Amino acid sequence: MSTGLRLTALVVRIGFGKLGNIGSAPLLEFLLDERAERKDIQVRVVSSGAKMGIEDAADVAQKLSEFKPDLAVVTSPNASLPGPTKLREILINGKVPTIIISDSPAKKAVQDIEKIGAGYLIVEADAMIGARREFLDPAEMSLFNADLIKVLTVTGVFNVLWQEIDKTIQSIKKREPLTLPRIVINKEKAIETSGLKNPYARTKAMAAHEIAKRVGDLTVEGCFVVKEWERYTQLVAAAHEMMREAAKLADEARELDKAEDMILRTPHHDDGSVAQKRELLEKPKRLS
Amino acid sequence: MSTGLRLTALVVRIGFGKLGNIGSAPLLEFLLDERAERKDIQVRVVSSGAKMGIEDAADVAQKLSEFKPDLAVVTSPNASLPGPTKLREILINGKVPTIIISDSPAKKAVQDIEKIGAGYLIVEADAMIGARREFLDPAEMSLFNADLIKVLTVTGVFNVLWQEIDKTIQSIKKREPLTLPRIVINKEKAIETSGLKNPYARTKAMAAHEIAKRVGDLTVEGCFVVKEWERYTQLVAAAHEMMREAAKLADEARELDKAEDMILRTPHHDDGSVAQKRELLEKPKRLS
Amino acid sequence: MSTGLRLTALVVRIGFGKLGNIGSAPLLEFLLDERAERKDIQVRVVSSGAKMGIEDAADVAQKLSEFKPDLAVVTSPNASLPGPTKLREILINGKVPTIIISDSPAKKAVQDIEKIGAGYLIVEADAMIGARREFLDPAEMSLFNADLIKVLTVTGVFNVLWQEIDKTIQSIKKREPLTLPRIVINKEKAIETSGLKNPYARTKAMAAHEIAKRVGDLTVEGCFVVKEWERYTQLVAAAHEMMREAAKLADEARELDKAEDMILRTPHHDDGSVAQKRELLEKPKRLS
Amino acid sequence: MSTGLRLTALVVRIGFGKLGNIGSAPLLEFLLDERAERKDIQVRVVSSGAKMGIEDAADVAQKLSEFKPDLAVVTSPNASLPGPTKLREILINGKVPTIIISDSPAKKAVQDIEKIGAGYLIVEADAMIGARREFLDPAEMSLFNADLIKVLTVTGVFNVLWQEIDKTIQSIKKREPLTLPRIVINKEKAIETSGLKNPYARTKAMAAHEIAKRVGDLTVEGCFVVKEWERYTQLVAAAHEMMREAAKLADEARELDKAEDMILRTPHHDDGSVAQKRELLEKPKRLS
Amino acid sequence: MSTGLRLTALVVRIGFGKLGNIGSAPLLEFLLDERAERKDIQVRVVSSGAKMGIEDAADVAQKLSEFKPDLAVVTSPNASLPGPTKLREILINGKVPTIIISDSPAKKAVQDIEKIGAGYLIVEADAMIGARREFLDPAEMSLFNADLIKVLTVTGVFNVLWQEIDKTIQSIKKREPLTLPRIVINKEKAIETSGLKNPYARTKAMAAHEIAKRVGDLTVEGCFVVKEWERYTQLVAAAHEMMREAAKLADEARELDKAEDMILRTPHHDDGSVAQKRELLEKPKRLS
Amino acid sequence: MSTGLRLTALVVRIGFGKLGNIGSAPLLEFLLDERAERKDIQVRVVSSGAKMGIEDAADVAQKLSEFKPDLAVVTSPNASLPGPTKLREILINGKVPTIIISDSPAKKAVQDIEKIGAGYLIVEADAMIGARREFLDPAEMSLFNADLIKVLTVTGVFNVLWQEIDKTIQSIKKREPLTLPRIVINKEKAIETSGLKNPYARTKAMAAHEIAKRVGDLTVEGCFVVKEWERYTQLVAAAHEMMREAAKLADEARELDKAEDMILRTPHHDDGSVAQKRELLEKPKRLS
Repeated sequence: MSTGLRLTALVVRIGFGKLGNIGSAPLLEFLLDERAERKDIQVRVVSSGAKMGIEDAADVAQKLSEFKPDLAVVTSPNASLPGPTKLREILINGKVPTIIISDSPAKKAVQDIEKIGAGYLIVEADAMIGARREFLDPAEMSLFNADLIKVLTVTGVFNVLWQEIDKTIQSIKKREPLTLPRIVINKEKAIETSGLKNPYARTKAMAAHEIAKRVGDLTVEGCFVVKEWERYTQLVAAAHEMMREAAKLADEARELDKAEDMILRTPHHDDGSVAQKRELLEKPKRLS
Repeated sequence: MSTGLRLTALVVRIGFGKLGNIGSAPLLEFLLDERAERKDIQVRVVSSGAKMGIEDAADVAQKLSEFKPDLAVVTSPNASLPGPTKLREILINGKVPTIIISDSPAKKAVQDIEKIGAGYLIVEADAMIGARREFLDPAEMSLFNADLIKVLTVTGVFNVLWQEIDKTIQSIKKREPLTLPRIVINKEKAIETSGLKNPYARTKAMAAHEIAKRVGDLTVEGCFVVKEWERYTQLVAAAHEMMREAAKLADEARELDKAEDMILRTPHHDDGSVAQKRELLEKPKRLS
Repeated sequence: MSTGLRLTALVVRIGFGKLGNIGSAPLLEFLLDERAERKDIQVRVVSSGAKMGIEDAADVAQKLSEFKPDLAVVTSPNASLPGPTKLREILINGKVPTIIISDSPAKKAVQDIEKIGAGYLIVEADAMIGARREFLDPAEMSLFNADLIKVLTVTGVFNVLWQEIDKTIQSIKKREPLTLPRIVINKEKAIETSGLKNPYARTKAMAAHEIAKRVGDLTVEGCFVVKEWERYTQLVAAAHEMMREAAKLADEARELDKAEDMILRTPHHDDGSVAQKRELLEKPKRLS
Repeated sequence: MSTGLRLTALVVRIGFGKLGNIGSAPLLEFLLDERAERKDIQVRVVSSGAKMGIEDAADVAQKLSEFKPDLAVVTSPNASLPGPTKLREILINGKVPTIIISDSPAKKAVQDIEKIGAGYLIVEADAMIGARREFLDPAEMSLFNADLIKVLTVTGVFNVLWQEIDKTIQSIKKREPLTLPRIVINKEKAIETSGLKNPYARTKAMAAHEIAKRVGDLTVEGCFVVKEWERYTQLVAAAHEMMREAAKLADEARELDKAEDMILRTPHHDDGSVAQKRELLEKPKRLS
Repeated sequence: MSTGLRLTALVVRIGFGKLGNIGSAPLLEFLLDERAERKDIQVRVVSSGAKMGIEDAADVAQKLSEFKPDLAVVTSPNASLPGPTKLREILINGKVPTIIISDSPAKKAVQDIEKIGAGYLIVEADAMIGARREFLDPAEMSLFNADLIKVLTVTGVFNVLWQEIDKTIQSIKKREPLTLPRIVINKEKAIETSGLKNPYARTKAMAAHEIAKRVGDLTVEGCFVVKEWERYTQLVAAAHEMMREAAKLADEARELDKAEDMILRTPHHDDGSVAQKRELLEKPKRLS
Repeated sequence: MSTGLRLTALVVRIGFGKLGNIGSAPLLEFLLDERAERKDIQVRVVSSGAKMGIEDAADVAQKLSEFKPDLAVVTSPNASLPGPTKLREILINGKVPTIIISDSPAKKAVQDIEKIGAGYLIVEADAMIGARREFLDPAEMSLFNADLIKVLTVTGVFNVLWQEIDKTIQSIKKREPLTLPRIVINKEKAIETSGLKNPYARTKAMAAHEIAKRVGDLTVEGCFVVKEWERYTQLVAAAHEMMREAAKLADEARELDKAEDMILRTPHHDDGSVAQKRELLEKPKRLS
């Protein structure tokens, strides 16, 4: 009946499946509904924590499917690994439109993802953590993520993520045929979406993005190439210092826009639409 | 059969139920297994995203229960609200040992939590975000969390969280009777657990902790007390500036320990035990 | 005779009585006449230094009375203590219009002050120093005051102080009936008077103000509540780190207004009137 | 009678006469008794505020003399001016041992001061403020003093001041013949007394001291030499930026000693003796 | 022949003779042709490295003369020393128009330079390095120069240098009678040429310039006056800390102009003309 | 004759040929003789400024050869270009032992350099400047070099350069058969030679080195790949922001060693030997 149809249309069910961690994952669902006011979506997140084996993936997929999502968003490091592959296959097999969010190594999976009909948002700056026992403990893990989240926010990466998911949600609400996003978010795509206005804020943000991306070169070298523990410990420690610096530079970029009172703010309304403002003391205006 | 018992004993199943967001939540499960190497635990996270209504809570509880956790950890703002209350009641009714992690307003629920036999870790510095539409958009939400995570990490709050959960896991592994933690994490408890060594690092961290905690005074005033939008916008914006400053001060504290090469690192082994080191270029030593 | 009357009107005699120290006190008289050019006032300061006993107070009052002030301004910590109370009582008994400047604990004295007909300016951000022998030496005392003075200046507190005293001086010069100020200077009153223009400068200043105010919570706890010396030493040290941070944040706020060349400057003329300017390279304009 | 004599010996009466302002003046009496605990001294301060004319000076001297001080300490800019000269002459004529504290231009008065038998502490880094109406308003005056106080504290200047006054107090208590201090406090004298331990902390402090001293070159040029307002406004503004930088560098110097937990603390006891400590968490030890 | 004349006119031959090092020297020739595109000049540099003896000077002069320069630019510390004097004399004797670039001690040579018909650009902020073996090693030398170059760039000194040389080149190209520059570059001349627009950027730059200049007072004292090695080591170390601070302040000045997107850029065209722009994303416009 | 031979042996003649600019070039000769005291070497530098064409190269080679150097050191960007190739060929043909110092693109020339018997020091962190007319003017060029010099100094790159040249000089003095250095200076080689002691100083320096190296990726993309001026302007501007950040991080690394008073200093003696010290206030000790 039409009522039922309308209700389905009004509230889009979004299922987030998370395997392991990347910087884009921990706050992802909150980017869509930052003040918990939104009435047009219902969210479930299922995660296997740090593990991303095939059985974990299958179980997460199962739980997510029971939620009957209108849209699935799957996050994991390196989406070409068997676990993430299994997860998206089960979802796609269950006819759930699925967007993959992953990091640079996921580029290897792009063809595979396209073939099964999923979308993807590959985040180049979402660099691998320095996962060596001589270095990485809970505190170092947490600080790295805090720095990375700051970089991904200011440089515009998170804007790409939630805007693309929001676009898909809008299409679902309008019952349009879905065109899932297929984007590699590089430094230029990110900055263009960052909303930063001062040109030096933009170039500083681009520099922060590049530094964050290059963190991955050192962590990969430190985790997979170098075998002597004194050497790899220094490499991954240097990588985290780079990320700390990238976060400080991102912060500096945002402060430049504060200096001219032109921080872009794009809060969600309870109907899922997005408003916009630049001056701190103005009311957000609904985008037409 | 004994084999089955041993297997259960070897791998502890931990279910994380998350309703809404607090700073202690997004990375919580990774604090237990920062390099995804741990073999003694299996983790599932189920969350309803930003929403924390009773039905969401019931559904999250249901999904968590299906995982048959040996231990449940529930995170939410203000654990005295109906949603979080419902969630823990269902878990406890299902005989799942449950630890509540929440923020200062949860102090109102302490008696209730104790009565039903759950544990709690109340994080005073986990201040409420400045949830006003004129101010809080996805980027501001994300940056606030990044700053807050930095404060909670450096000041020792996260150490309390994972160490208390680890203690409970060890008890479960040893089939000991469980004594769930019941702790309000204030500035002194946090710093004592922070591992910071330089006394000025400790006092700077304590200052950062206090500033973070006081953020909550301004956001509560801005969100619930003041009605004029120009006034509350400035109040919540000032609160976020305080958190940014607290994060910078926390960072400064940690840098002091770098200056003498005595950052405490406590990585997990794959068997769940914790090793320890202070010099960057030394091997972590297993704690007896 | 009229000449005598006119002369009295032209030069207002202001007596400052200072007992003990608060951040608002050391530069107070210079806030009225920052370049020593003012011809409409004559100033005497009498102070008993760090001590604020009743006999000190009586003696200070005596010396001040001999100056025959048209207006007395009395500064002290906690104006509800016997010494400050004695001081203002003697002045009021001598028919000298008196304004009390004090810190948060003085709120207890507000009724008493009003009853005897005095005015008051209570400065919430003027937090108590960390007065423990294990911590506070001459250098630490001096640095705390330097930081506090910076906070009180930038956040607008000092503007409230001198503008209210100036208003009273103007009334005396005009032989108007006096309405002495009765203001608790909180974060919103301060920022509104700060002259800061960039909205982020204002919110940063408000954050600095709040941090400074909260310093008092820790110093009170460290000086009056906690008895173990290791604990209170850390508490008061953390409090001073908070004040140092508040000063840095206040400085950052002012720099934001420099970035757009719109620092408000309000120099006094030699007749006591106030001029105003915003651009560094413009002439101050007399306010009508 | 001996009792009377002993009582006089136990409590030394110190009179501070202040004409106009220099950075060394506003907190001077508190440097001797930073926690208001000292029982061996009684203090009176009399000041004429910003003005330093001869009549003001005579009146201040009169009021100070009524206090019957055992020791007078006189602060003013340029002690060679008629006002400060008058003030010390009256005190010396009244047989009050007198120490002059002043800034670099006071060097011209050194012979005169020695001739009348007074002591002096000339503070080279106590640079003149940028007293031009186009620039200096109450806020700028206050911030300059906050920065200057920070420099004078960390670089050791204030240590010289209170230690020399304390030495004189001790002599008075012991009824020794007085040898009043006659010192020009330059960069080497200051640093040597600063208590800073890390050699780079000392060289940074020396740099801060030199920058502060050179502020005076620009303010003198801006206030007395250059006549075009656009030029002198920039000169005095540049001078204040130098002082702000000197304060930041002084702060950086002190932080270096925090990094090794070796800040020297020299708190006063209630009997006026000085204790000493370096580690934050140790008890101060009384100096023999 | 006319062809020969035209060729000479089109390509001006500039010979740089460098004896010893000053901050103005290492990048001097690149200031004229920052992207190696310029077709109107041909450059040769001959240097004797760190040494500046008479024989070195004569040899450098000889090699430079063989290049048949239309213009010689000679850099050295203290141009009044025998080596630099010899160098310029040989060039002038060879009818080569010569501009001397040197530091403050060169003021002693001004009359001599004018008498022989050379031009000069004396750079007050180009302070002597702290040349004591206990302190100055290759790294410290290099860092001092990096800081100094930053100061000389931002404060406008380098702009004066290349603009004056460019003016002379233009005159040579136009076959005008040459008026060689004779300028002592002090703080006001520098800032006026700096292109900085925000008035606080200008005053900060002026402060940086003054600090840099005053570095020379300490290095001269440390290198030539004080004999005790512990004392002079601290003096020259303090001097280098001052230069580091000046560089940071210069950087802060430039950042202020970034905050309003108004950094002046004056790139050279391949014909030697200079274009100009302020917004980062605008095309440079050729100056008429 | 033996006398002549001994003289030759005592004073080694070093000719520096410079074509175009790289960060390793401007201060190179001073790294060997930082206080101009060295008696065992004689230095000539000949440069063609910014230009590096074949004719320039030939002329520079000619002038250098006339100096009859015992050792030639040639600096240029991309040593595989025709100009630098010509320069070294002429020198080698003239039997002058030659060391090539160049940047990453020079790796293409390594085989060629080895074949002709020259040595090389290839500096990976010596990134190309952002040579676009819309961005690069004299000031931006100069600031980039200042930042780059800071990075190359602190991260140990310059230490490799002068130590390798010094080794060759020693061999020449001892009339040993020469083994010219053939080293690609990457992040690990640099840090190992940096003398930095605190492990976090080393990892910060390594991070700075990596960021500096990656600057080259953006400048190459901005200068040679991207054609739209708005895009390439942002790319090269972002690259320079990266270098500025690398310089700040390098500075932070060195400050860490100051915090423990263990900056390595390696001054040259006048006989060319190198002394060493770590504490600021100790005498350098001659290395055996």
